[in-house]
Amino acid sequence: MSQALEELARRPSRWLDATGNHSETVLSTRVRLARNVVGSAFTHRAREEQLHHVMHSVVSASHKTSGLAHGLLLRMGDLEALDRQFLVERHLVSHDLVEGPSTRGILIGPDETLSVMINEEDHLRLQAIHSGFQLSECWRSANALDDELDSSLEYAFSEELGYLTACPTNVGTGLRASILVHLPALVLTKQINKVLQGVTQVGLAVRGFYGEGSEVMGNFFQVSNQTTLGQKEKETVEKLEGVTRQLIEYEERAREVLLRDARTQIEDKIYRALGTLKYCRSIHSQETLNLCSAVRFGVALGLESLPELPVLNEILVFSQPAHLQKLLGREMQAPERNVARAGYVRNKLN
Amino acid sequence: MSQALEELARRPSRWLDATGNHSETVLSTRVRLARNVVGSAFTHRAREEQLHHVMHSVVSASHKTSGLAHGLLLRMGDLEALDRQFLVERHLVSHDLVEGPSTRGILIGPDETLSVMINEEDHLRLQAIHSGFQLSECWRSANALDDELDSSLEYAFSEELGYLTACPTNVGTGLRASILVHLPALVLTKQINKVLQGVTQVGLAVRGFYGEGSEVMGNFFQVSNQTTLGQKEKETVEKLEGVTRQLIEYEERAREVLLRDARTQIEDKIYRALGTLKYCRSIHSQETLNLCSAVRFGVALGLESLPELPVLNEILVFSQPAHLQKLLGREMQAPERNVARAGYVRNKLN
Repeated sequence: MSQALEELARRPSRWLDATGNHSETVLSTRVRLARNVVGSAFTHRAREEQLHHVMHSVVSASHKTSGLAHGLLLRMGDLEALDRQFLVERHLVSHDLVEGPSTRGILIGPDETLSVMINEEDHLRLQAIHSGFQLSECWRSANALDDELDSSLEYAFSEELGYLTACPTNVGTGLRASILVHLPALVLTKQINKVLQGVTQVGLAVRGFYGEGSEVMGNFFQVSNQTTLGQKEKETVEKLEGVTRQLIEYEERAREVLLRDARTQIEDKIYRALGTLKYCRSIHSQETLNLCSAVRFGVALGLESLPELPVLNEILVFSQPAHLQKLLGREMQAPERNVARAGYVRNKLN
Repeated sequence: MSQALEELARRPSRWLDATGNHSETVLSTRVRLARNVVGSAFTHRAREEQLHHVMHSVVSASHKTSGLAHGLLLRMGDLEALDRQFLVERHLVSHDLVEGPSTRGILIGPDETLSVMINEEDHLRLQAIHSGFQLSECWRSANALDDELDSSLEYAFSEELGYLTACPTNVGTGLRASILVHLPALVLTKQINKVLQGVTQVGLAVRGFYGEGSEVMGNFFQVSNQTTLGQKEKETVEKLEGVTRQLIEYEERAREVLLRDARTQIEDKIYRALGTLKYCRSIHSQETLNLCSAVRFGVALGLESLPELPVLNEILVFSQPAHLQKLLGREMQAPERNVARAGYVRNKLN
């Protein structure tokens, strides 16, 4: 298992390959379904043996599905702090999950497109992640996995409310669909606050790079639905789809304005960012994210002689502290990490 | 004549070739001799025809010397503002000279090692500039030219005071010897003020990149003698020589300390500077100087994969506003210059 984790830590996730639609603006699309099984209390109230039972049932059921038959099971209790942090950075598990006991875990499909968190806030959280803007595909993947699991597990479901979940905000469809969108032009033209205000007014949530409670970094925004009760899954997905299309359009218009009115300054900023990434000898993860964001913006603008999107996406994820340490096979304090990160980034870009 | 000036503007001066001693620390050495001829009032009190007469005599005398026989004569009155600024940037003429009428001028030897300003504050200011730390060689060059001129011209000289000059600070030997020294390690280790205080206490002057009244930029300092009266030329030269040796030694010690205690930060700063120079799309001359200064420091520290000193020296001089405009053959406002400068610098470094 440890060997499998090491391999995972060295291989870029499928969703970083920038093959999805509008990959220059949308980094990834995610659909998450919250489910619980009957016969056990919700995770936070369940007894130890109930949690073990849930873990066992979910793993057995998952092994019968096409997507997770050969999945990698990681029990949080078996993992070092570094491995747990690595999984958070990878957008595979929540902060909530990694702090739990060994009865919590995650089952990860071969290319990370599908995964299931077990005994997080809910017994199961099915997750599908796709590259770029692929909301329907993502929803279809999650749905197919959900159907397969449903045939082996008995989900807690009420005819009146829908799927029952530990937190009322997830009751109903249990669906959270989100896109991670890169909006540097809206930030630079100072339209971002107005635009995001519009997004929240139609009932969607805007969060930072790591989702709930995380900071906005590198002009990446996570946009997702807020409500799950009394709404059909299709409605949720279509609403997010429509808003995302609008965000992309606003961002593209802002790009045109910037290229028209401030081309030199923008190009200068972008190529200097690339120069720094290529030549630095020590760099913090936050600065790496910001510089990658600038270069990614250059790719979106169609500027020449810039690295390819998949390379930039990979740096975004692999330059994070735990990824870097896993990649280099040793634990490092911040100053040593900053030097190692600079070496990794230079190496990827040269 | 204009053609000759255009050629001058495109060719790096000999003193930029970094062949002199300690070129990593001393950019250039200069020796200047102030002289006046009998029979005419000092420049600021002379009548027009006296100035014409001085100009004529000095040019005739110069054409009989080995160093200036094929010199290029530029009369300030014939030059555009851009050409005059170019000559100041080139360290060939003073601000004083370029603001004067056409009776002022400069005669420049083939490789710019020797030149004579005519009708500046004094009738003649002979100048020798050499690469690196070459005080004796520089003094010898200036002296040889002085002897040759002396055989055709009658210098204003008093047995008691020595050479007579317009300003009392130059009376005596009329000698000003100076070195342009690069002291980034002393600046970074915050020892520079103490060190420069010591320099002024022994009677030497410290100035900026363009000499008298100019700002310190890019950690370059011009150190020169203050007094000319009651001192033998040899004493003046030896004193500056001794102090320069000490400055070099202090700088080298500070470099060792920095490499020992802060190698990563220093390397990071230096290579980032190189990255910015190689990738910028718009850059101000002051920033270019500062970044070149950082990269030059890297060369002094023996770091790898950095540009050669002559290339950095050339950028230092040719990235200045008038040089850049002469090089590209057109007048440009600051924003256009900044873009052109970035292109020039990238081109030199790639």
